[in-house]
Amino acid sequence: MDILETHPKKDSFDLGPLRAAIDAASACASTCASCSDACLHEDDPAALRRCIDLNNQCAAICRTTAEILSRPGPNGDSWRAIVQACIAACRECAEECQQHAGHHEHCRVCAEECRRCADACQTLLDAAS
Amino acid sequence: MDILETHPKKDSFDLGPLRAAIDAASACASTCASCSDACLHEDDPAALRRCIDLNNQCAAICRTTAEILSRPGPNGDSWRAIVQACIAACRECAEECQQHAGHHEHCRVCAEECRRCADACQTLLDAAS
Amino acid sequence: MDILETHPKKDSFDLGPLRAAIDAASACASTCASCSDACLHEDDPAALRRCIDLNNQCAAICRTTAEILSRPGPNGDSWRAIVQACIAACRECAEECQQHAGHHEHCRVCAEECRRCADACQTLLDAAS
Amino acid sequence: MDILETHPKKDSFDLGPLRAAIDAASACASTCASCSDACLHEDDPAALRRCIDLNNQCAAICRTTAEILSRPGPNGDSWRAIVQACIAACRECAEECQQHAGHHEHCRVCAEECRRCADACQTLLDAAS
Repeated sequence: MDILETHPKKDSFDLGPLRAAIDAASACASTCASCSDACLHEDDPAALRRCIDLNNQCAAICRTTAEILSRPGPNGDSWRAIVQACIAACRECAEECQQHAGHHEHCRVCAEECRRCADACQTLLDAAS
Repeated sequence: MDILETHPKKDSFDLGPLRAAIDAASACASTCASCSDACLHEDDPAALRRCIDLNNQCAAICRTTAEILSRPGPNGDSWRAIVQACIAACRECAEECQQHAGHHEHCRVCAEECRRCADACQTLLDAAS
Repeated sequence: MDILETHPKKDSFDLGPLRAAIDAASACASTCASCSDACLHEDDPAALRRCIDLNNQCAAICRTTAEILSRPGPNGDSWRAIVQACIAACRECAEECQQHAGHHEHCRVCAEECRRCADACQTLLDAAS
Repeated sequence: MDILETHPKKDSFDLGPLRAAIDAASACASTCASCSDACLHEDDPAALRRCIDLNNQCAAICRTTAEILSRPGPNGDSWRAIVQACIAACRECAEECQQHAGHHEHCRVCAEECRRCADACQTLLDAAS
């Protein structure tokens, strides 16, 4: 059973897209942290600096987005700006990771996960507007 | 494909218990945040103060544990103390949530998730010793 | 000595507004968490639900903003969207806290801290454009 | 005015050591993130991998410790394990940073900040026992 189905305000949110966005953001936070760590331990981390930077940034905003969306009691409007920031960070990180996808499998996997998270967040924003 | 299978130091960690602990901690962080929010929006949040407090605390340490375990490049010994703190917080939160499990379905679900996370973290510590 | 003065890319950022924004976001994250906790332990937490919700949300995005700004190696454009989300959350939380400022001193202090953080973040965005 | 002086449960905690620990953990979280970023942007980041790893780990647990201590409504026992984990991570990071202190000023500053945070956390544990 999904815990959000038992939330007293469950009629105020649309569980499908909300759950998809929480799960995608949680997974993307972990994946970006792993890609950052994997890049750092490759033979030439200096060549992957920008990828590590964007991975760290994306991991942080995805972690916070998952946390905020996990507390869906009706709470104002600024959550939208947070979700939009998450989409921006995911897209920028996906673009960078994609450029290393041919050389590093973790970058290929991470680019996919970032795009998946951006899409899930966009779907949530569209559903909630 | 699991991103950690592509990590350059993958021979230094045991992927099975590591992945299980990351996923359990990510899920528990989100579940505890949702239980905290659900408790707050019940009719009598004053009666659930201790549950909300422990949920918030458990959410925070689970979130950090998931982040740290997602970066498994060989990195010292203090990660064990962090995982032990996660186990302690999960067990304490599970005990409190269990006491409200008969009245609030979210507390029942959350107690289960906390126990699952504590177990996965303990299994990881046992495997890594 | 400010650690950011010793950063190898220190010529790529403007330390004054950056440091001010990091410090304001760190302080606001802690203050919002304290206000949330104080509200919960007041006699009638049900009356403060929205304040607790917005405090939790603002604490989360301020914490992440402080983390991201603390890593100022040149890293793309999406950090701006994160700082903008922080401003939005701070302003919304300040407005709510201000409504309880007459009854709860912690809400008065928190409203001030949120406005201070929003201003420091705006100054940083203006300086970096 | 310190927001924690206005907390309804202020008689249940000792504000001096609590505030010192919150401020030290917040500062250390930011400093470790900055040291990690500075190390990555040095000419030879490969030589600083272990420092970056421990910085990231210490930043994460300090951030969470600051968050948890900022919510001091009486909340169980597991917060002690979290503070102990913070001390362990700070000490391990300080030792590593100290080894690079002669070459990198940010590592020297970070080692100091980590020791200061470990001390403040230990003082808090001693005061609360």
